[in-house]
Amino acid sequence: MISYSVQPIGILHCDLKTREQTPKNYDESEHSGIIEIFPQFREGLEGIQRGDVIVVLFWLDRADRSVLRVHPRGDGSRPKRGVFSTRSPVRPNPIAVSELLVEAVNDLELTVRGLDILDSTPVIDIKKRI
Amino acid sequence: MISYSVQPIGILHCDLKTREQTPKNYDESEHSGIIEIFPQFREGLEGIQRGDVIVVLFWLDRADRSVLRVHPRGDGSRPKRGVFSTRSPVRPNPIAVSELLVEAVNDLELTVRGLDILDSTPVIDIKKRI
Repeated sequence: MISYSVQPIGILHCDLKTREQTPKNYDESEHSGIIEIFPQFREGLEGIQRGDVIVVLFWLDRADRSVLRVHPRGDGSRPKRGVFSTRSPVRPNPIAVSELLVEAVNDLELTVRGLDILDSTPVIDIKKRI
Repeated sequence: MISYSVQPIGILHCDLKTREQTPKNYDESEHSGIIEIFPQFREGLEGIQRGDVIVVLFWLDRADRSVLRVHPRGDGSRPKRGVFSTRSPVRPNPIAVSELLVEAVNDLELTVRGLDILDSTPVIDIKKRI
């Protein structure tokens, strides 16, 4: 089976250290943190400004990749269903998609609000929101 | 530098064969096609139904990964800017995020509408839309 190699472009720094304290989705979060972009990707940041809402893709490096059915929202309140019909972090390719408000841009550091992601998680892409 | 391995969960079949005929974004497209999920990921589909809007992540296997500044929308009408402030397919990790309407579900095949992606592109994740 073919596979592709994903290389982190940066890393997240925030105060979310455990799953229990991490919001389930970005639209339920007021947590801020800093995305540190690695120096070799500096040129890619040109045009991102304070006040933008950006789409950030994270690689959930601590998520289980072997599970295909989960309880939605991680509790037992609803029956299990396929991971592709949920936003569970558990999935074959553990990529999260968040929409985050840029509160500040300081060289290679983006201060962002709306985090539903654990501290030290690798960042693999940033896009303009539609 | 650490890297991670992405494994396709399926592949797209559609009539978009060249970049010129491919819409720039899903919100500008009425093209339909079929996402074929590979059999080992069958259980992950449970819960996806006709009428759902799903978030689909594609691995743009023909995109240039070495470029960090581009003309927005791929033409020369606007000055170059960093890829992370655009939705260009050109980026270090060439992952596209589309929101697609599920028109039909037939075992391992999802018929979807809104495609801005070339035929034969690998699918790497599907999520519920917020």
